[in-house]
Amino acid sequence: MGIQARERETWLKSVVGQCAAWLVAAIVLVGCAGIRASDPLPSWNEGAAKAAIVRFVADTTRPGSAGFVPVAERIATFDNDGTLWTEHPMYVEVLFTVDRIKAMAAANPAWRDEQPFKAVIEGDRAAMAKLSEADFFKLIAATHAGRTSAQFQKEAADWLAVTRHPRFNRPYTELVYQPMLEVLAFFRANGYRTYIVSGGTLDFIRSFADKAYGIPPEQVIGTSFDAKYAFAGDVATVTAEPKLMLLDDGPGKAIGIDHVIGRVPIAAFGNSDGDLAMLQTTTNSPASRSRPRLAAFVWHTDAVREYAYDRNTSVGRLSEGLDLAPRLSWLLIDMKNDWKVIFPHELKP
Amino acid sequence: MGIQARERETWLKSVVGQCAAWLVAAIVLVGCAGIRASDPLPSWNEGAAKAAIVRFVADTTRPGSAGFVPVAERIATFDNDGTLWTEHPMYVEVLFTVDRIKAMAAANPAWRDEQPFKAVIEGDRAAMAKLSEADFFKLIAATHAGRTSAQFQKEAADWLAVTRHPRFNRPYTELVYQPMLEVLAFFRANGYRTYIVSGGTLDFIRSFADKAYGIPPEQVIGTSFDAKYAFAGDVATVTAEPKLMLLDDGPGKAIGIDHVIGRVPIAAFGNSDGDLAMLQTTTNSPASRSRPRLAAFVWHTDAVREYAYDRNTSVGRLSEGLDLAPRLSWLLIDMKNDWKVIFPHELKP
Repeated sequence: MGIQARERETWLKSVVGQCAAWLVAAIVLVGCAGIRASDPLPSWNEGAAKAAIVRFVADTTRPGSAGFVPVAERIATFDNDGTLWTEHPMYVEVLFTVDRIKAMAAANPAWRDEQPFKAVIEGDRAAMAKLSEADFFKLIAATHAGRTSAQFQKEAADWLAVTRHPRFNRPYTELVYQPMLEVLAFFRANGYRTYIVSGGTLDFIRSFADKAYGIPPEQVIGTSFDAKYAFAGDVATVTAEPKLMLLDDGPGKAIGIDHVIGRVPIAAFGNSDGDLAMLQTTTNSPASRSRPRLAAFVWHTDAVREYAYDRNTSVGRLSEGLDLAPRLSWLLIDMKNDWKVIFPHELKP
Repeated sequence: MGIQARERETWLKSVVGQCAAWLVAAIVLVGCAGIRASDPLPSWNEGAAKAAIVRFVADTTRPGSAGFVPVAERIATFDNDGTLWTEHPMYVEVLFTVDRIKAMAAANPAWRDEQPFKAVIEGDRAAMAKLSEADFFKLIAATHAGRTSAQFQKEAADWLAVTRHPRFNRPYTELVYQPMLEVLAFFRANGYRTYIVSGGTLDFIRSFADKAYGIPPEQVIGTSFDAKYAFAGDVATVTAEPKLMLLDDGPGKAIGIDHVIGRVPIAAFGNSDGDLAMLQTTTNSPASRSRPRLAAFVWHTDAVREYAYDRNTSVGRLSEGLDLAPRLSWLLIDMKNDWKVIFPHELKP
């Protein structure tokens, strides 16, 4: 290297060094201004719930804070039905299942004389009202059986594209909660990975979660079925069997989290007693003791803009959770008072 | 804003702009030099296997390349036993299980008269040689039953810390393959997420995978058990039941990938017929057709530095895979010829 080249190199290094220092300073300035100016939860009214969420994310991500949580451990879990989208008057996957069973009836003539299929095919409301949870999972299993994930997801996506909510007359994927979309984005912008932990099936949730919430397939935990692997004609397929592997509801949510994530979440959001185990795991596991944690219920208090229900409903019943919440310091998100808007379409364009 | 402030802002903007341009130029220069100079797989001999891996990662990550794969879809899956660490003379978790069953025998007196426990407790080699795979999973299940993930992982980590390989006289966690550590790092440096997909149990693998491979708990897919959730004394626990939920071996690997990841991997590495379904899924799923994919076997050909085995072994048998490999364009990684070193301790300090 000649003298000229060496000088050039020294000069380049010095310029790069100065530039880097300036750039860092500029980024810090712009960043600070941005944080002060922008509200991460614009669809939330000021209040205890919003303040608690904002404070929690700040505390767990500010370097040097007593509650600092390394990025690898920043896991937030969310129930889907009633927490991220509307579940009344009925869970969306149950409606899908009823439509699918009817559509599949012609190809399954034996169902005409076999419960719980008979009740659904005949549209016998009295008989359907008597179906147990096991009956419903038998119906749900039948919609998955013999299908690959891709096949089922296409059927679900096709149905979601053409089906509308009876009251709001919009596709269900538009009836997601704008304030919760903001919570998802806020957590993710702060290094959290956001998981759905749903009683719905893996493939039903996966059919819309990436588009609707930005939650990729590997961050969906759901009810799953045994499956069969085949390699025929040089094509590999995994098809569902009509036998539950994990019922990811109630206690199953704690088990699903343990199996799939293998870490205790730092934050969890639910809306019903089906989420108790997930919230308890988040705030009251042995691993939770030494660190910050946040658990919250979306509390359906708004009969005008959405629905009002808690103890007296079979769809998304919240009763034991309301009793436990004060003792375990769980947050109640009061839809009516905490949320400026419910759905994205209410936002001014 | 006064004139002075505005001038300062204009000046700052111009400086920042110039600096940014210089910095980009400098990064590009340094980056190009770096790419040319550094070898991502230094423990690999030059040859077809190394070239194929390097070319694959380049092709799938170079913007504009015909085989470009978006970051979200960059999934690479790895078997553990015999692919990432030594599995001969016996799978490490089987050795752990035998030691644990012996240690637990005093507290389980009924085992003295009950197979398969009796054979293990008495150290009856003839009886142990006759145990079926189901027998072994009964033993493995017993080491998990009634324990939380954290409790089991501590027992496994404690055992791994004090147990040495009979031939190499080192802890098993030091008998990981240096060339495969480089493959893991190379894929990750290029936006891939690396998953373990193992016949071993979730919690056994999780007890060392983060330290040994940099693979976090949520990127471990393994054999799992049913579990029980309890909330007692305000403490939430999930404890294993002695009943298989998913046997994550053979066909189970394809099912585990479908359930946990919900995407078809772009690349997969195995070493035995237990990995056939994982490799077939990677290269021959309907979703694989339109995009690049890589499947490879680590082929144990080095009796001097490690072990040589394929068709004639019960531990890590590779037979059907050797027949299928040429037809499905799977790569054979020949340990003896493709790897400069086997274990990290062989590297010059």
